[in-house]
Amino acid sequence: MGNSFGTLFRISTWGESHGGGIGVVIDGCPPRLPLCIEDIQFELDRRRPGQSDITTPRKESDSASIISGVYEGQTLGTPIAIYVPNGDHRPEAYSEMKDTFRPSHADFTYQTKFGIRNHEGGGRSSARETIGRVAAGAIARKILKLAGDIDISAYITRVHDIEMPTLQHFPTLEEVEASPVRCPHPATAKKMIQRIKAMRNEGNSVGGLIECRIRKLPIGLGMPVFDRLEAELSKAMLSLPATKGFEIGSGFNGSLKSGSEHNDTFVNKEGQIGTSTNRSGGVQGGISNGEELIFRVAFKPTATIIQNQETVDKEGEKATLVGRGRHDPCVVPRAVPIVESMAALVLVDHWMRHKAQCESFDFNPA
Amino acid sequence: MGNSFGTLFRISTWGESHGGGIGVVIDGCPPRLPLCIEDIQFELDRRRPGQSDITTPRKESDSASIISGVYEGQTLGTPIAIYVPNGDHRPEAYSEMKDTFRPSHADFTYQTKFGIRNHEGGGRSSARETIGRVAAGAIARKILKLAGDIDISAYITRVHDIEMPTLQHFPTLEEVEASPVRCPHPATAKKMIQRIKAMRNEGNSVGGLIECRIRKLPIGLGMPVFDRLEAELSKAMLSLPATKGFEIGSGFNGSLKSGSEHNDTFVNKEGQIGTSTNRSGGVQGGISNGEELIFRVAFKPTATIIQNQETVDKEGEKATLVGRGRHDPCVVPRAVPIVESMAALVLVDHWMRHKAQCESFDFNPA
Amino acid sequence: MGNSFGTLFRISTWGESHGGGIGVVIDGCPPRLPLCIEDIQFELDRRRPGQSDITTPRKESDSASIISGVYEGQTLGTPIAIYVPNGDHRPEAYSEMKDTFRPSHADFTYQTKFGIRNHEGGGRSSARETIGRVAAGAIARKILKLAGDIDISAYITRVHDIEMPTLQHFPTLEEVEASPVRCPHPATAKKMIQRIKAMRNEGNSVGGLIECRIRKLPIGLGMPVFDRLEAELSKAMLSLPATKGFEIGSGFNGSLKSGSEHNDTFVNKEGQIGTSTNRSGGVQGGISNGEELIFRVAFKPTATIIQNQETVDKEGEKATLVGRGRHDPCVVPRAVPIVESMAALVLVDHWMRHKAQCESFDFNPA
Amino acid sequence: MGNSFGTLFRISTWGESHGGGIGVVIDGCPPRLPLCIEDIQFELDRRRPGQSDITTPRKESDSASIISGVYEGQTLGTPIAIYVPNGDHRPEAYSEMKDTFRPSHADFTYQTKFGIRNHEGGGRSSARETIGRVAAGAIARKILKLAGDIDISAYITRVHDIEMPTLQHFPTLEEVEASPVRCPHPATAKKMIQRIKAMRNEGNSVGGLIECRIRKLPIGLGMPVFDRLEAELSKAMLSLPATKGFEIGSGFNGSLKSGSEHNDTFVNKEGQIGTSTNRSGGVQGGISNGEELIFRVAFKPTATIIQNQETVDKEGEKATLVGRGRHDPCVVPRAVPIVESMAALVLVDHWMRHKAQCESFDFNPA
Repeated sequence: MGNSFGTLFRISTWGESHGGGIGVVIDGCPPRLPLCIEDIQFELDRRRPGQSDITTPRKESDSASIISGVYEGQTLGTPIAIYVPNGDHRPEAYSEMKDTFRPSHADFTYQTKFGIRNHEGGGRSSARETIGRVAAGAIARKILKLAGDIDISAYITRVHDIEMPTLQHFPTLEEVEASPVRCPHPATAKKMIQRIKAMRNEGNSVGGLIECRIRKLPIGLGMPVFDRLEAELSKAMLSLPATKGFEIGSGFNGSLKSGSEHNDTFVNKEGQIGTSTNRSGGVQGGISNGEELIFRVAFKPTATIIQNQETVDKEGEKATLVGRGRHDPCVVPRAVPIVESMAALVLVDHWMRHKAQCESFDFNPA
Repeated sequence: MGNSFGTLFRISTWGESHGGGIGVVIDGCPPRLPLCIEDIQFELDRRRPGQSDITTPRKESDSASIISGVYEGQTLGTPIAIYVPNGDHRPEAYSEMKDTFRPSHADFTYQTKFGIRNHEGGGRSSARETIGRVAAGAIARKILKLAGDIDISAYITRVHDIEMPTLQHFPTLEEVEASPVRCPHPATAKKMIQRIKAMRNEGNSVGGLIECRIRKLPIGLGMPVFDRLEAELSKAMLSLPATKGFEIGSGFNGSLKSGSEHNDTFVNKEGQIGTSTNRSGGVQGGISNGEELIFRVAFKPTATIIQNQETVDKEGEKATLVGRGRHDPCVVPRAVPIVESMAALVLVDHWMRHKAQCESFDFNPA
Repeated sequence: MGNSFGTLFRISTWGESHGGGIGVVIDGCPPRLPLCIEDIQFELDRRRPGQSDITTPRKESDSASIISGVYEGQTLGTPIAIYVPNGDHRPEAYSEMKDTFRPSHADFTYQTKFGIRNHEGGGRSSARETIGRVAAGAIARKILKLAGDIDISAYITRVHDIEMPTLQHFPTLEEVEASPVRCPHPATAKKMIQRIKAMRNEGNSVGGLIECRIRKLPIGLGMPVFDRLEAELSKAMLSLPATKGFEIGSGFNGSLKSGSEHNDTFVNKEGQIGTSTNRSGGVQGGISNGEELIFRVAFKPTATIIQNQETVDKEGEKATLVGRGRHDPCVVPRAVPIVESMAALVLVDHWMRHKAQCESFDFNPA
Repeated sequence: MGNSFGTLFRISTWGESHGGGIGVVIDGCPPRLPLCIEDIQFELDRRRPGQSDITTPRKESDSASIISGVYEGQTLGTPIAIYVPNGDHRPEAYSEMKDTFRPSHADFTYQTKFGIRNHEGGGRSSARETIGRVAAGAIARKILKLAGDIDISAYITRVHDIEMPTLQHFPTLEEVEASPVRCPHPATAKKMIQRIKAMRNEGNSVGGLIECRIRKLPIGLGMPVFDRLEAELSKAMLSLPATKGFEIGSGFNGSLKSGSEHNDTFVNKEGQIGTSTNRSGGVQGGISNGEELIFRVAFKPTATIIQNQETVDKEGEKATLVGRGRHDPCVVPRAVPIVESMAALVLVDHWMRHKAQCESFDFNPA
């Protein structure tokens, strides 16, 4: 339990950082969707370690195979299994993690909960697990694009205390990918990269914020009262490693306004009802309202640092963890496609749920 | 779909603001829990409108009945149905809402999604729906208390721009309830009340922040990877009306620290492994680590204001919504028991899930 | 857990035989379905005790109210709550059941599983629970009828060892309801009634078989591999009190034929592909094939008899249960609308699931 | 949707008959269960084609690998992924199935439901899919054995019209495996084998019945009202290819008895409450009562026969399907471990569910 996500478009991920490999099964994908391995590999390559000089230098090709559910270039409607074998295995690199708990990692809680853990590379708690999410998310994105011309764009707005100005437009993929830090404001991106490199040189790490926008979403997605669209997105984002917060629309600062300042006025936009402002963030009453969906996710600094740290071992005895090895001084740039993937998974699932309940039957045939 | 919450301790709420009433069914409650109606009514009274001079003056007694699942003062293990009839019905008060969409309410999205809506009092999108959550939450809290001496305490830390100093201790119920605004810092509480009354006098509204703490939680609750404890809490909170954000531990500001500043050092606390700081907020790798669980929820200002507002009607024609009637100038004080209830529901569900997987079998009998 | 049924059209029943009442919540009902209380009461009256001289003489009006989810004669798409208060309460009639276990009833297993039980009238294990199923089933049947002109017809084919000849046509409601025993073959119905009365006079009971047919079902319902249509129907039927078996199409006798005798030949029926025989029972590979769906359900004789029976009490001491009171000498006639209701619930749920996955998106717009 | 089974011990199978391979993911397995590949391969070998001279001569080694979830010989509590690559691929053998619908197979319904299908070897509707069930079932059986000394034994009681006498004892694995037909009555087994070989020589096929018994099951498994133990078992069995019926205890013949003949008398068995007869089949009120669980499953004759058959093609034109190739003249012997596997999956899931609700909390500490 806990390794599946979604109701109708449902994914189940499996695999530890070290061991046979990492994979995902997608159950409920609509049939006859054109799909090839390149659709998936493109997004995996955006998530891959070693993609630029500000990520971990670990080399992992993360080559995916589709093992079932696709036939002659189209989905069958049966489960799609995708498999990425593990590589670059250095078990000796993790020997000291066997008995010593790394600060702010999942070592202690996994060991206590399960009474056993695969300590190599973090095992199941490793961010490698998100490979399955990105692979499934690539399929969800293709559904959104082909069936509704829906675009999702995430990007970094803050690294440590370096923040970009508010973005006034929906950025293209090219704008985001122009910099390895995935901030579409070139001057800020440059500063962010400098900061990340500076922290890496200290053996330290930083976190940051990701903003995500979705446009052309149909009105009506989201299932009140518990499966509100923002509730589902929030769960999706907080299920990612290293996340500490989620906000939609006006978010935490929304409470600094009064009601008369915060309300979004309804207007007629060329025959479509819309709002003149978007403090709601594209969702009202838990249901998409046709405006741009906009939310932000907070990531803490990477817990792995290349400094000596005080900690305890399994017996509770004091120990010193010697910092060494390869690490990501800032995971946030690589998290951008993961955030987009989780958003896509939520949206496809809710689109299917909406259609099932609200658009499947006509009880008043003429 | 969407009106149930939880996996093993599962609640289903039903009912519109106007109509027969509001209720909840709880499926999966452990048997032999001592339970009486007072346990439930106590929490409902904390949520009730008209409880103080800073809430809406609507009078709703919200008297609950237990219709099934309890026998001679104990739960049976069968579904517990709780019912609260509606009262104080004034359909005429809502006539202009029939065709006109209130800004930042759910009128437009419900109408578009379902093609129909009960416009009276907001129908299903009314905060009256949370009665069912609070009733079920009262049962969950009793389980946590009796089985684990676990306490949950939520309180307001900000109203509009009035913020209390960081609270250094776990507040008692008495401290929280000492002021109708449910801020345990008396000087700040006084200012908050003044602000709320001032805004009400303008026919305006304000939002704020709630912080929630849970202590004595067992280590091991939370199901990686998708059902991480913070992911489930986040979904629970964002499923509440008027919420715009969630953060746990260091939250959005956590990314302003470097890794070496942010990591929580493991220490031996009288034989128990714990952490010297708590930026993690009580959760690591999605699993409770035995430290205090601490999270915050952002609420927007109430959308209902007593001012005229521009909007459109169902045909997209411009319309003016005349502000009148009774409203809550700030819903946050009444949301405190709702936040606690949702937290309790998540925790009981995850406690049961944890026990089912990790504490039910011994494969190595001596 | 265990008190809900369905994935997209999901019902949750609650209530014990004695106590406040019995009810059901339906979540996921499509909006804008015309619905009135008479739609529901009609089916409840077919299930009601005291409806004829071959059922229990208990008088229960079983009057239902719709408390939420319907507005001005149409469904809202929000949860529909239906409530039937209990009546005719005689707690003293059950005093000896408090400590003594009735043979082949659920007294012993409920007491052992939960450590507590409401012994009055069987509590939750009472067939009164099926009221909620029939109320929800009435809504499902209306959806099937209005959206697809789909008919469901169940009827008794055997009581004790009295069996009707194979029915060659799809019977009308009138044919089934013509006799209180709900066997559409009048000569057999007469014998069945005589047998039931004879058994009642002895204080004894009998069981029997129900056959159920569904016509005009769309091709494509059923979700391989685990949620095959026959698997879902089988679960639905075996979840009913007193059922001991389920078979579809050729059923248990199908294995007496060879493959060449058993296979259904595909033929062209006026432009539609169909089969010349129907040993498959309307389902192939777990998916409806457009032929008539046909299955049978076996019911054991009522466990309650008006004879003295040997048993044990809670302490395991020998005890004699004195037979007295009012009982149904044969529950099968009243089970007919229950079987139809469960079938309708499965079919609506699967129709919605099929549409969500297979009919919601077009990936090849011209 | 539809490719997962179970609530707490949840399996998801994937894969088509032809293509990359077949697999299963098990989510929710308790941690620290000793597990090695031999545990799984042993059961897969009982299911494997070509295991004896009465099965299909297809050679498939069905060699399984555990890719995740197991570390140093014990389960981690994380998802267990098991993978069996496909082999013996002869796509040309299936060319005529591309456009022509085989009678009583899933070709027509899959094609119509999904608008596409992998026709090679039946694709997803192939019985190869059950590999994943048997692999997962082997794990479930080990849990039952180690944690509760619970045994499951299935065997064939009928092939075509050849039926064995009622078995008075719980058969050992050796007794069942003594004959390739898996009938523990040697004289009957011999006749069954003769019949199967005779039918194969005609290019024809036969079906049969499997009986399954489970002993030492704890009292209390099963979740009324919808997830009754027999309802879950029934769904599990009817989700298997070629099944047409399920019955528990007295089953279809139970209705031939009167209530006084059918009721099981409670007796004190050396301090334990039990029943003197077992017409209930080990389940009362949907909950296991501690007696032997006993049920039967009906299998139709294999649809594939080596005879020419009339049918239609995709356009509805008449066509003749020429019988050729390799087939199982009777799938029932190979279905024996599949039935046991599905039973084991249901039982582990319900054991976990029971413990979660009924055995996890003590509300009355001394």
